[in-house]
Amino acid sequence: MTSTIPTLPEIQQGIDAVEKLMLSQADEYHSDLKSALSVLLSSGGKRIRPRIILLLGSIFNAKKETLITLATSIELLHTATLVHDDLIDGSLLRRGAPTLNSKWSPAATVLTGDFIFACAANLAAKTNSIEVMSLFSKTLMTIVNGEVNQLFTSRCNTSKEDYYRRIYAKTASLFETSTHTAAIISQVSDQQVEIMRKFGYELGMAFQIVDDVLDYSGDQTVVGKPVGGDLRQGLITLPMLYFMQTHSDDKNVIDLLNGNCFQDEQSVQQLVKEISTSQAIENSLIEAEQFAQRALNYLNELPTSSEREELIQLTKFSVMRNK
Amino acid sequence: MTSTIPTLPEIQQGIDAVEKLMLSQADEYHSDLKSALSVLLSSGGKRIRPRIILLLGSIFNAKKETLITLATSIELLHTATLVHDDLIDGSLLRRGAPTLNSKWSPAATVLTGDFIFACAANLAAKTNSIEVMSLFSKTLMTIVNGEVNQLFTSRCNTSKEDYYRRIYAKTASLFETSTHTAAIISQVSDQQVEIMRKFGYELGMAFQIVDDVLDYSGDQTVVGKPVGGDLRQGLITLPMLYFMQTHSDDKNVIDLLNGNCFQDEQSVQQLVKEISTSQAIENSLIEAEQFAQRALNYLNELPTSSEREELIQLTKFSVMRNK
Repeated sequence: MTSTIPTLPEIQQGIDAVEKLMLSQADEYHSDLKSALSVLLSSGGKRIRPRIILLLGSIFNAKKETLITLATSIELLHTATLVHDDLIDGSLLRRGAPTLNSKWSPAATVLTGDFIFACAANLAAKTNSIEVMSLFSKTLMTIVNGEVNQLFTSRCNTSKEDYYRRIYAKTASLFETSTHTAAIISQVSDQQVEIMRKFGYELGMAFQIVDDVLDYSGDQTVVGKPVGGDLRQGLITLPMLYFMQTHSDDKNVIDLLNGNCFQDEQSVQQLVKEISTSQAIENSLIEAEQFAQRALNYLNELPTSSEREELIQLTKFSVMRNK
Repeated sequence: MTSTIPTLPEIQQGIDAVEKLMLSQADEYHSDLKSALSVLLSSGGKRIRPRIILLLGSIFNAKKETLITLATSIELLHTATLVHDDLIDGSLLRRGAPTLNSKWSPAATVLTGDFIFACAANLAAKTNSIEVMSLFSKTLMTIVNGEVNQLFTSRCNTSKEDYYRRIYAKTASLFETSTHTAAIISQVSDQQVEIMRKFGYELGMAFQIVDDVLDYSGDQTVVGKPVGGDLRQGLITLPMLYFMQTHSDDKNVIDLLNGNCFQDEQSVQQLVKEISTSQAIENSLIEAEQFAQRALNYLNELPTSSEREELIQLTKFSVMRNK
């Protein structure tokens, strides 16, 4: 995303500072932790959360050092959850690069994730805001609870309500916390804090829906991981939910509704192809656009600035990534 | 330990409140997280850290609610590290009860540990002290770094200096943070805070040395896990270090010094027997007693009270557990 929407020079400087601070976390610790951080950083990532935090903080005149600390804390929390997530899912690729668990032992991967959690918490404490700390830990509880739900609850049978709860836990909660905490450390009015919290929520929901659409219709070389991954794991997302509505007599859909997930690669590929060329994709994107539109409405309440313009472009782009 | 040194009624009430608060953490989350917490709680544990925090807080007139919150946070942090630790080591028993990972999948165990970390961080934030939050996250970094060291560094060759660094990371750091934070939330003088920090450090070091001695000389039914576990994992602790000094011509010792850890159960059992009846045990206990004595000296700086008396008894008992 960063390569498509150009960023303001001062924001790019901020992103560079965030990446430097991320890498420096293991400076006084075991060299393998440093290597792990370095591998994780070099595999890229859009840095969308730090970027939004930096843009909002810049609009609200937040103290620069605190802003960098917060943005790094949130990005590390995100990174730590990905490390454990990839281990749990057994994913071998993320962003087109090998995952940590594909190269390291489960033990090393668990500990690296734990260490990054600890670094993230340490930086959250350095913002000197109890409210930030509290949101940080509650968000982690929400994310992990979502993963536990996904692990223990039958994946085959799901409702739209379940789906929304799931993508809130997985993605929108941390987007919400990003924009919420960026406003908190800026000491703007409670009303503005609340508007920013809602902006993050709506953007995060839109963002995850589009991610889920890309898992069907995306180009593997762009997405950085094989398409159909969700379905292969028996994970029902919005495109599949829409497809099920209009294809209730499809054999594979009946199988799913009866609680039988897919083990058979041929069925998965066939269904991915059917869904990716169906109306389900368009319907899902319409929902994503509705979330993005609400996010834009919140942005409209901010004064005009080049930072606001970038946030508008980012929000629009988040739902146009597959077009 | 709680069964051997009677506790004051108000401290026992505090421990009960801590256990209740621990269990309630998953109330609004997935029922399997609640089950996991319940299993972990029912497997007991000495609650030594909360007990020390409650005793110190009582001496320093800390606000009761904050004290319970802090004690629960620290005990949950301890619990989370044990959950991941047992998974990494593949341990099947702790405190005589099956570990979580012996019954649950690695994925569920990783996530349960993460959830408990998040709960612990959330409670740390609820103490409303940035200093507590900061110590909390730094301690987690120290503990995890210690585990990474243990994982990546050859276990067979070690020095006493390494050993001390290792047991600081593993145990003394959290004891130190327990007493340090108990003093911080009590708003006593900086000098008293520092004395309490040192008390926790010394007690934690003594405690871990005795734990390591018990791994050789303890009764499995009392210790709750098989003896010789450390050696079986190729982990060199103080009794082995002393034994190596006086038995440099022992075939097994030569093997160890050459970097060959044990895979052979018979060698392990033989060496455990030799060490457990050697002077190495006594020498290790003398060191533990020196740490405990320094801990007692710090306690002497507190005014006389029944709480201080209990702390003295706990400290003395921590080095007498195997007698």
